Amino acid sequence: MTLVNGEPQDSISAHDRGLAYGDGVFRTLAVCDGKAQCWQRQFAKLSDDCGRLGIPSPAESLLRAEVAQVAQYLALGAVKIIVTRGQGERGYVTPSQPHPTRIVTGAPMPQFPPRNFDEGINVRLCELRLADQPRLAGIKHLNRLENVLARAEWSDPAISEGLLRDQRDNLIEGVASNLFIVVGGVLVTPDLSRCGVAGVTRERILAWADDNAMPTEVRDIPQAELLAAEEVMICNSLIGIWQVREIGSMGANGKRWERGTHTPTIRHYLTEYHV
Amino acid sequence: MTLVNGEPQDSISAHDRGLAYGDGVFRTLAVCDGKAQCWQRQFAKLSDDCGRLGIPSPAESLLRAEVAQVAQYLALGAVKIIVTRGQGERGYVTPSQPHPTRIVTGAPMPQFPPRNFDEGINVRLCELRLADQPRLAGIKHLNRLENVLARAEWSDPAISEGLLRDQRDNLIEGVASNLFIVVGGVLVTPDLSRCGVAGVTRERILAWADDNAMPTEVRDIPQAELLAAEEVMICNSLIGIWQVREIGSMGANGKRWERGTHTPTIRHYLTEYHV
Repeated sequence: MTLVNGEPQDSISAHDRGLAYGDGVFRTLAVCDGKAQCWQRQFAKLSDDCGRLGIPSPAESLLRAEVAQVAQYLALGAVKIIVTRGQGERGYVTPSQPHPTRIVTGAPMPQFPPRNFDEGINVRLCELRLADQPRLAGIKHLNRLENVLARAEWSDPAISEGLLRDQRDNLIEGVASNLFIVVGGVLVTPDLSRCGVAGVTRERILAWADDNAMPTEVRDIPQAELLAAEEVMICNSLIGIWQVREIGSMGANGKRWERGTHTPTIRHYLTEYHV
Repeated sequence: MTLVNGEPQDSISAHDRGLAYGDGVFRTLAVCDGKAQCWQRQFAKLSDDCGRLGIPSPAESLLRAEVAQVAQYLALGAVKIIVTRGQGERGYVTPSQPHPTRIVTGAPMPQFPPRNFDEGINVRLCELRLADQPRLAGIKHLNRLENVLARAEWSDPAISEGLLRDQRDNLIEGVASNLFIVVGGVLVTPDLSRCGVAGVTRERILAWADDNAMPTEVRDIPQAELLAAEEVMICNSLIGIWQVREIGSMGANGKRWERGTHTPTIRHYLTEYHV
């Protein structure tokens, strides 16, 4: 089910700036028993992202009601929210009085392979390098061609995710996930101030670590450090957290990891506490 | 008038990848007496851009007919073509059998101030720096948030365009135009292999210079060279070519230019020969 500005419909204006320029933001939320998970964090991030692009954020109560409406019959589902700057005059100039477009879609949860949760995943190191753009870094915006091109690098279904590097060989994120590694007992996640998308699950895991006195660092992760890490994990709102068990396509630099202890601990937290 | 996949309508699917990811390309064409200008070059570039993203290009005859249909009653107009990868499954993975979406819109030509043609324009040097992404450089794709943010830097109607630099202070382009400078009698335009959009008018001007034994160079243009140039021009398919007469917002580095001789010569060519 899709609501566009609150009305059940499956189409938007062909002149929306979300299409013309990718001028908007989005979020993906898990739904459990008809209830969207981690709503406060998700809305706060959506609203922040709108602010960084100068798009007026929808009111929290309005969006919450629309999300509740599309989620209500989903036992286990996914809700996607898109907010664009709406229609505009011709050209890049932003309308002085924008009327943002809200697109809220609910769907059943994708079927992820159970072994991804139980045993972990194989990933690929993508060739595409993310560009540095501090003005857009961290924002879950609609300019996602880098992710599209990176995802098009492989079709082998045994590869569950691709890891993305910046142009200096630092690891940044997965194509559709954030990255954590454990190094010397410290939970490390890449600095996303130059590129990458800062997801809500990443934020939740950092908060969990703080609450549980596990040391964390947010900083650059060079490729060599990834390979030397004790445990590697990816996360997002739909999958929760998966351990990376193998990196393929690295030739001599390929690497396998034993089953780790941090992934199940963090998954337990993500599953039990929806804050 | 707008045609979506050949049908007169003003809406597209809310699940189109053009909206979700900016997964598509576009072109803007001038229309004169109901006829789209420079069609062969425009189609060739659109088709190349589709190829670089792995989107099947629409057939030339099909698109030409749709452009002709929206252009037919326009004495002086603009046609915008968008081609997206169409609807897809959930997530970044590209559909194995994509059905691209074609959106073709015709509208009257925007009213540009006559003095922009006769006397030239004032421009601003934008603060936003374009990110290096060789995989996307040159393509007129739908990921245009950098242009949106740069255009939002000013609202003074006396400023007709903003010039964009890369992260090493090289000039790359205007927000919605390409850039040429004349240095020692050589026509120089920025190298667009790391960022920027390669427009058809830029290509036409380079071809004109070759045909007329005017030396050209496609290379990096440092900021200091811009200020020292004998003549500075911007171009695109709708405006043709405008001379830059003044750069503001550069503080002590601001600069004014006298009326140049190259701009009217090139404009004459662009207006008279539509190849």
